[in-house]
Amino acid sequence: MDSSSFTYQVKGRFWIESPQGTFLGIGRVVLLERIREYGSISAAARSMQMSYRQAWELVNSMNQHSQEPLVHSATGGKGGGGASLTLTGEKAITLFWAVKQDFDEFLAKRSETLSL
Amino acid sequence: MDSSSFTYQVKGRFWIESPQGTFLGIGRVVLLERIREYGSISAAARSMQMSYRQAWELVNSMNQHSQEPLVHSATGGKGGGGASLTLTGEKAITLFWAVKQDFDEFLAKRSETLSL
Repeated sequence: MDSSSFTYQVKGRFWIESPQGTFLGIGRVVLLERIREYGSISAAARSMQMSYRQAWELVNSMNQHSQEPLVHSATGGKGGGGASLTLTGEKAITLFWAVKQDFDEFLAKRSETLSL
Repeated sequence: MDSSSFTYQVKGRFWIESPQGTFLGIGRVVLLERIREYGSISAAARSMQMSYRQAWELVNSMNQHSQEPLVHSATGGKGGGGASLTLTGEKAITLFWAVKQDFDEFLAKRSETLSL
């Protein structure tokens, strides 16, 4: 192998926790974005091949890890009324992608000075 | 819940890749340290409740992802002779913990300016 085969890169993943556990990870953020797009937790779940129960549990977890809920459900319940993001939900999405940008920048920069 | 319940932190994990795939992660680095400690791949594997085959595959993978091998096996083969780290193996351990320190610092610093 030529020496370019031994060029190393730092890779990683991140998530955001509260003292109670995971608050936001990429799957949760994509779910929020789908809820915004579809206006419904069940349609958002379906679009991600996720069960309604799983999506509901993730939404419930995010709401409980925040002072203000991220998702407002008009009626709730299986196949129930619409759902929409609150201002806090919008802020959570923005925060996550801002951290992702900084995280990716850190990984790229740290990869520049990797050598054995 | 009081507001300290909504203090968020960025958490994450990282690994080091070559174009061929994973080169170093924390499990591989601990395995290297155990090989240094026990002077044997099989004893190192046992100390981590890892099969010899699994440990050997990880060592083989690390050796192949580097211009110089990280581990030198005196004879090889199951239950065979001793194993020791090469200088490159020592450097890999040092590199990994240096990146870990920078990674942890990034996460702690980025966690200071997280709010919804």
